[in-house]
Amino acid sequence: MVRATGFTDEALQALSHERQSLLCVGLDPHPDKLPLCQQDVVAFCRDIITATAPYALAFKVNFAYFEALGRRGWDALYQVREALPAGALLIADAKRGDVGHTAERYAHAIFDQLQFDAVTLSPYLGFDSVAPFLAYDNRWVFLLGLTSNPGAADIQQLTLADGRRVHQAIVETAQSWGRKGELGYVAGATRPEALATIRKQVPHSWLLVPGIGAQGGTIQEVMETAGARGRLLLTASRSILFASSAEDYAEAAGKVASTLQKEMAAFLLLI
Amino acid sequence: MVRATGFTDEALQALSHERQSLLCVGLDPHPDKLPLCQQDVVAFCRDIITATAPYALAFKVNFAYFEALGRRGWDALYQVREALPAGALLIADAKRGDVGHTAERYAHAIFDQLQFDAVTLSPYLGFDSVAPFLAYDNRWVFLLGLTSNPGAADIQQLTLADGRRVHQAIVETAQSWGRKGELGYVAGATRPEALATIRKQVPHSWLLVPGIGAQGGTIQEVMETAGARGRLLLTASRSILFASSAEDYAEAAGKVASTLQKEMAAFLLLI
Repeated sequence: MVRATGFTDEALQALSHERQSLLCVGLDPHPDKLPLCQQDVVAFCRDIITATAPYALAFKVNFAYFEALGRRGWDALYQVREALPAGALLIADAKRGDVGHTAERYAHAIFDQLQFDAVTLSPYLGFDSVAPFLAYDNRWVFLLGLTSNPGAADIQQLTLADGRRVHQAIVETAQSWGRKGELGYVAGATRPEALATIRKQVPHSWLLVPGIGAQGGTIQEVMETAGARGRLLLTASRSILFASSAEDYAEAAGKVASTLQKEMAAFLLLI
Repeated sequence: MVRATGFTDEALQALSHERQSLLCVGLDPHPDKLPLCQQDVVAFCRDIITATAPYALAFKVNFAYFEALGRRGWDALYQVREALPAGALLIADAKRGDVGHTAERYAHAIFDQLQFDAVTLSPYLGFDSVAPFLAYDNRWVFLLGLTSNPGAADIQQLTLADGRRVHQAIVETAQSWGRKGELGYVAGATRPEALATIRKQVPHSWLLVPGIGAQGGTIQEVMETAGARGRLLLTASRSILFASSAEDYAEAAGKVASTLQKEMAAFLLLI
């Protein structure tokens, strides 16, 4: 597989402008949803990657869907990783979060072994659970800020004694963490008001925004809320992967990706 | 591998009394720490399991250490799982936490494919990230409450507008979550005052307590703080795994496990 050398903030911005795209293609291949003509998860992902790569700024691989495949799942993950192009930010959507010495092992797995450029992490265990990832030059951490699921209300939105929400405090605290790599945040597209709050806190950070397409967020809404300076990765997963359940699944995926990219390009021209 | 049928709260209590143990053997085999005479992670874990099983109420497998092995890591995880005995609570220490449809895949991986009895989860994404695990009869979720690492201060210990700490609010909220399985909490042994708080909140829940041994917590302290009714799983990892770096590593691990179990038995007699 291609050895990840990572991206600087500038390199990712340049790539975004060159490709006129903020599109992150999410790979979460549920076996029950695969086209009847293609029941092999790895072959399916390879076809999706090939069809969407011209339009994608990033790919996001959701580890759960590979671990769920059983004993051979981790090998399938490696095969899909090998099929990913070097010219895009490759994100391990793993949502890991553990104490320092264990986090160091997760970082080794994801950055050294699997050679991803970026990882999603949970902030619940604080700095020393994130530090081993931030120690890698030009690799990226996307820390969970405010997610788009109903359970976000259970913790993330609680109000602290000083008036801030928990997710705001996390983003603020993380700003002061020493790092060699880049630090961005995950912010759900279905909560525009929260997206606006996070963008105000970190005007110069990249935000990884799931929820475009199947989950209901629109590109226009997200761009108007948080895209004034670009630095967004807008993730579409199911709307691309399962655009067609027939033999034209890859072609259909490419078309959806192309449409999304064109819509993004219109906004990027204004930046 | 043995198909997990899970444990009821009563069955785990009965096993604890029968075996006179609250010991959870933590398997986090760092390759750099293996004895020179045994550099095979799977064979090492098998020997440790055999040597400690008579004294263990539970085994906890830390996924990070297997993922860090690379492409074959997940297969090694399956091999170690196959070596684990049916007569103990088998915990997947995976600290997963993702939105509902992804959490369902992680639950499938851990409970159906790998056949673990229990899992550690991060609470940051709230109820729908935990619900797919709680839908399994007699399987266990240990939700991160207050951990023993320095970063616990960054979020878990923040004070809410209503005066509670974030970790207290989580434990309180989780109590109301509907479930078929059992729900316990992870609480670090190195913070006795926090352990006391959590125990007061959930007098009848099992607590998974890392930090015995290498991390500095003592059995006496934990038992006096939170063990009045048992329902504790006291985890020792490095102090058992790396008790000897010579050829007697398994025998030495068994001796440490036996000593810890005897110390626990003295307290269990008082319950």
